[in-house]
Amino acid sequence: MASPVESRRPELRKDSVTNRWVIFSPARAKRPSDFQSKSPAPSSSDPPQTCPFCIGQEHHCAPEIFRFPPQNSDWKVRVIHNLYPALSRDKDLDSSASLCSDSLVWGCLLDGYGFHDVIIESPVHSVHLSDLIPEDVAQVLLAYKKRILQLAGDDSIKYVQVFKNHGASAGASMTHSHSQMVGLPVIPPSVSTRLDSMKQYFNQTGKCSICDVPTKDLLVDESVHFISVVPYAASFPFELWIVPRDHVSHFHELDQEKAVDLGGLLKVTLMKMSLQLNKPPFNFMIHTSPLQALESDSAYSHWFLQIVPQLSGVGGFELGTGCYINPVFPEDAAKIMREVNISI
Amino acid sequence: MASPVESRRPELRKDSVTNRWVIFSPARAKRPSDFQSKSPAPSSSDPPQTCPFCIGQEHHCAPEIFRFPPQNSDWKVRVIHNLYPALSRDKDLDSSASLCSDSLVWGCLLDGYGFHDVIIESPVHSVHLSDLIPEDVAQVLLAYKKRILQLAGDDSIKYVQVFKNHGASAGASMTHSHSQMVGLPVIPPSVSTRLDSMKQYFNQTGKCSICDVPTKDLLVDESVHFISVVPYAASFPFELWIVPRDHVSHFHELDQEKAVDLGGLLKVTLMKMSLQLNKPPFNFMIHTSPLQALESDSAYSHWFLQIVPQLSGVGGFELGTGCYINPVFPEDAAKIMREVNISI
Repeated sequence: MASPVESRRPELRKDSVTNRWVIFSPARAKRPSDFQSKSPAPSSSDPPQTCPFCIGQEHHCAPEIFRFPPQNSDWKVRVIHNLYPALSRDKDLDSSASLCSDSLVWGCLLDGYGFHDVIIESPVHSVHLSDLIPEDVAQVLLAYKKRILQLAGDDSIKYVQVFKNHGASAGASMTHSHSQMVGLPVIPPSVSTRLDSMKQYFNQTGKCSICDVPTKDLLVDESVHFISVVPYAASFPFELWIVPRDHVSHFHELDQEKAVDLGGLLKVTLMKMSLQLNKPPFNFMIHTSPLQALESDSAYSHWFLQIVPQLSGVGGFELGTGCYINPVFPEDAAKIMREVNISI
Repeated sequence: MASPVESRRPELRKDSVTNRWVIFSPARAKRPSDFQSKSPAPSSSDPPQTCPFCIGQEHHCAPEIFRFPPQNSDWKVRVIHNLYPALSRDKDLDSSASLCSDSLVWGCLLDGYGFHDVIIESPVHSVHLSDLIPEDVAQVLLAYKKRILQLAGDDSIKYVQVFKNHGASAGASMTHSHSQMVGLPVIPPSVSTRLDSMKQYFNQTGKCSICDVPTKDLLVDESVHFISVVPYAASFPFELWIVPRDHVSHFHELDQEKAVDLGGLLKVTLMKMSLQLNKPPFNFMIHTSPLQALESDSAYSHWFLQIVPQLSGVGGFELGTGCYINPVFPEDAAKIMREVNISI
């Protein structure tokens, strides 16, 4: 591994996408090995006696929404209800809860209508997402797309957050490989902040901030339709973005060919992270546009996928300020990620 | 303990201080005991052979800034440099890093000048903040105040974040009771968002949002000069705010009498949390106003202290959206906190 630049001064950086100050602090990290995960996520394990996500245990799960291939007991991907949903998929027609009602000026209240689904990524307990061939990773991505398109038919749903928690310390309560999506009745604050920031960049430069994402010293990999980079102002050590080369606002515009291409790059990226950082727990999030986005917003909105290995916890400084302290300079992280060669 | 209202529907709430949607989700929590910490922070422990924060080990520490009482080997509180500071207290006069330079439109870059100090709260390793008598907690609070006033003399420092991490999973790397403060060359994003939101409430209602903080079913305790409440849209289970009754913008306006009063309420609040939630790791943060705040901003800015027990981690949903899912309704959390009586 490369040795970091120890004599470097700390820097504060902010990018035009998240619009958030990040402190890069070399004093808080002496060696690259300091960033390897001390509590790796299990790479494979025997299933517990009844893992409800395993093939053959479907009757222990919450209801299924669809599977790939359809009507096939030999499924590859299943999309099901979350047994403990954050939101309720039943509309409460009598609900008195309404947005920012006059009677409650101090706060806003909204009925908790929405969707919280689980995507089971493999029928086999010990197979993780990065173990799948690109074509099968693509099936998972296309299951996200299909479910987003279903949710887009409901006018009450404003935004769909797709995310994956891998490993207990990244928030996963099940070890069987899965991801989740939440259909929300509001546009979340991080999404509004991101879109406002991207719009401001567009107004100032005439360009899309993601089309313009800096790659000098930050590029990790390239595929036909995507690139992977460490973002210039990464909030977390070894955070990575996978960015479509084409300017596209919504993730759900992904087609079959691009899904396979993205599947390959996602697989390679997760494998590299696993090798270089000792199988860390991780999260990934798809950052897309609101479902009812205006055509006029499409000039500056461009979806991407963010991967965050869980190497350090969040403390009072981050909770208080919304700033992050990142001990790894993005250029060093990108170099370490480029140093491993993986062919699939 | 009270049983939560199991038949309740999920709700989304947003308050006029943080301006952040929070999902309250009864389905994600069945019993109050689900929220007790599974990994309690050590309540007291023998010191490691050389804990540099212990009395008599001062020579193992980074340089001291001041102590209470001054020039006394029998000190109660010490403020020292952080050995691994996030920012550099040496100004780089040759630094080419400047705010949002034209050459770097995509991002902003700023030299990492600032301060990162540690407040050792007790000379004795096994004594935690909540073990101190109110007068000694007050000494810690007055040490924050003294150090903030010193940093306020530096025009480059815009905001001081005071915070405490208690327990490893809350970010504490040392078990000896301590807190930290960071003097920042920028106003952090959460602070700007909070002040904008409080200003908007003031413009709409003519009132300060913190003076107006809802207490119905949410009040936990009262002292002469402070109240403790669970906030209406608490981001975290059992999050608590300690709010000064008087409208005051800056924490560092705290006087001796109020410091003792706050010391007592802080001690009681931490003891209650420890009893009801099985000694959870926790963070607290002081939310104050920027150092160079304008007199015209004082009408709507009002400092408070936020306490967050670390009961659940953050996953991809929170990272992606900036929304939190809180399985405990604030009214239920306040009831559980009121159920324990502590006299000091």
